[in-house]
Amino acid sequence: MTSVKGFKAAAVAAGIRKAGRLDVGVIFSETPAVAAGVFTTNAVKAAPVLLDMERIKSGNGRAIVVNSGCANACTGEVGMRDAVATAAKAAEVLGVSETEVYIASTGVIGQPLPMDRLSAGIEKAATALMADGLDSVANAIMTTDTFCKTATATCIIGGKEVAIYGMAKGAGMIHPNMATMLSFIVTDAAITAPMLDNALKESVRKTFNRVTVDGDTSTNDTVLLLASGAAGNPPIAGPGSDFDTFSASLHQICLDLARLIAKDGEGATKLVEVRVTGAVDEADAEKAAFAVAHSPLVKTALFAEDANWGRILCAVGYSGARVEQEKMKLFFDTAQMVEKGMGLGPEAEAAVSIIMKQKEFTITVELGLGNASASVWTCDFSFDYVKINAEYRT
Amino acid sequence: MTSVKGFKAAAVAAGIRKAGRLDVGVIFSETPAVAAGVFTTNAVKAAPVLLDMERIKSGNGRAIVVNSGCANACTGEVGMRDAVATAAKAAEVLGVSETEVYIASTGVIGQPLPMDRLSAGIEKAATALMADGLDSVANAIMTTDTFCKTATATCIIGGKEVAIYGMAKGAGMIHPNMATMLSFIVTDAAITAPMLDNALKESVRKTFNRVTVDGDTSTNDTVLLLASGAAGNPPIAGPGSDFDTFSASLHQICLDLARLIAKDGEGATKLVEVRVTGAVDEADAEKAAFAVAHSPLVKTALFAEDANWGRILCAVGYSGARVEQEKMKLFFDTAQMVEKGMGLGPEAEAAVSIIMKQKEFTITVELGLGNASASVWTCDFSFDYVKINAEYRT
Repeated sequence: MTSVKGFKAAAVAAGIRKAGRLDVGVIFSETPAVAAGVFTTNAVKAAPVLLDMERIKSGNGRAIVVNSGCANACTGEVGMRDAVATAAKAAEVLGVSETEVYIASTGVIGQPLPMDRLSAGIEKAATALMADGLDSVANAIMTTDTFCKTATATCIIGGKEVAIYGMAKGAGMIHPNMATMLSFIVTDAAITAPMLDNALKESVRKTFNRVTVDGDTSTNDTVLLLASGAAGNPPIAGPGSDFDTFSASLHQICLDLARLIAKDGEGATKLVEVRVTGAVDEADAEKAAFAVAHSPLVKTALFAEDANWGRILCAVGYSGARVEQEKMKLFFDTAQMVEKGMGLGPEAEAAVSIIMKQKEFTITVELGLGNASASVWTCDFSFDYVKINAEYRT
Repeated sequence: MTSVKGFKAAAVAAGIRKAGRLDVGVIFSETPAVAAGVFTTNAVKAAPVLLDMERIKSGNGRAIVVNSGCANACTGEVGMRDAVATAAKAAEVLGVSETEVYIASTGVIGQPLPMDRLSAGIEKAATALMADGLDSVANAIMTTDTFCKTATATCIIGGKEVAIYGMAKGAGMIHPNMATMLSFIVTDAAITAPMLDNALKESVRKTFNRVTVDGDTSTNDTVLLLASGAAGNPPIAGPGSDFDTFSASLHQICLDLARLIAKDGEGATKLVEVRVTGAVDEADAEKAAFAVAHSPLVKTALFAEDANWGRILCAVGYSGARVEQEKMKLFFDTAQMVEKGMGLGPEAEAAVSIIMKQKEFTITVELGLGNASASVWTCDFSFDYVKINAEYRT
């Protein structure tokens, strides 16, 4: 699937990054669409995020404009003026209201947007809009990503096929920037703004918000979702089976994209799901999973394919989750490494070592205290992580 | 200064680590001493920590026994039985009560203590006790530490010279272990147990607890302080200038040791103080400083000597501290890099780059919101960090 009813898109090379590299993308809804968004919780927010957060309150949207090469972050009043002007330019060439245009930027921080090139790029993209242009935008938002990240899903609602298409860029960094996560999702579902917002927030909470590459939350993180209604399904206006069906598909899209982001973490050689089960409540499960997934000691052990269960138990221990050491179990996929808080010895370690050679596996910590669980996706910490993040000046 | 009145100490090679390597140490107070301790907040605690936490409630102590090479962590009931037996053995050979002996272990986890060798080592150390044996114990607790960490201070209380001697091992790791921080401090001050406890807790809070190498809190972290009273000062029994004098010296010892630990972080090439000023309260200042000091993105930039102010502002932003972006300033030593949340351009960056080539410098984030401040000590994140923590199996 490369298109979703009601949407057109295009990306162009506007010269903001290297010559010839796609760096400006436009996603356009042919009719008024419903919009929802989730934004960085960082107190330091880039200008485009501040603007979008204001506009998303309307629940409406017609277009998303994105550029790579410049994050328009830490740019003060100039940055906000440029953000407003960017959206205004898009509104003008697309013939829509300025307040229905959302913008996103990723790239160098502390530098102003090259407005001439960006405006020319938007103009060019607007004339190149195509039904199957979404993949092109997915390409334009890549920074240090090593592969393009898209996901699609369909579901049947009220006898009509509903399509969802999502794209994301990962926690890659470009000089001298921080990690930024962007995701744009479009669907032809007919759904009210409040229900779209509910579905997106719940999905993001359990997917994008449970991915960790280096634990840093950027100033520009943005997830935007537009719904055109062109599928013609009876509009989803409240809870019920139609909403559940749509939410499940949206969740799958977000999960696929989130996993791709972790897999493509800088220098990553492995994608690891850290699953905590048997917690007293979900908050505890999430805390424990994040502590393991964030720990540099655990992440370097993953890189070394070393069954270092002590580092994992240690991280769970300082997570703040309620634990009883003597009830803890630990598994790598289905191979058990720890029982009653103690290692099961060299034979178990040998079996685990084989599993750790895989590109993808799951670490399960069973706390044995309750019924709550949570998963976090992480990657290993390699020489290349330090190299990518330290050496770009040399 | 290599001795403190009232104390004797010795370390021996008991064969728990490599042959010939000092690995068992005993610190002995010739008369009943007052004791205080601070222990890991990790919910997963090693057996010696659990035992010490119980015994420290008495406020009394006669001896500290420490071994490297085996952490006696995640060892279940066997571990606790061995911990009790270790202290009992020391009590027997030293002729003191079992409950006045504190123990600490660092090294491999998940393996039982080699009790035969440890007991023989304790016996041997007890016969070798010397007034100037503290440095020897400081050597015995080194693991991947690249240098021995000790600090001394004197002060005058009631006309008497009071001495304090401290030793520490850093957040080094040995296969297949986690980082462990141990510190043992002895003083000849006469002071009551509650006041000693007050002084130690307050010092640890602002020193050892504000050092970060990789953010992991181990199962074995322990700080123990014994006071012999042999200086003959009027006993410090409450708040006042004597207590303040003693506390200031103790704080200096803890600060010196904490800085040495950060400086000797695995693979570290730089010691950096992250200072946050102008915060609404101290909790905010501490949160913001820790976020900067923990960030792998900041730490790799420190290694690269890259004036990446965006990563620092970003970390402050997600710390949870109250900030207003447009009020933030950033300095490297005295060179300003950021004003009103925005970078000051290439000239400022050039000046900062020179400062970043130093082995030690201070990053100051001025929030401009209040009068509270806090410092955290950190190190950079180098190729060698990954190497040390990943490659020991190859």
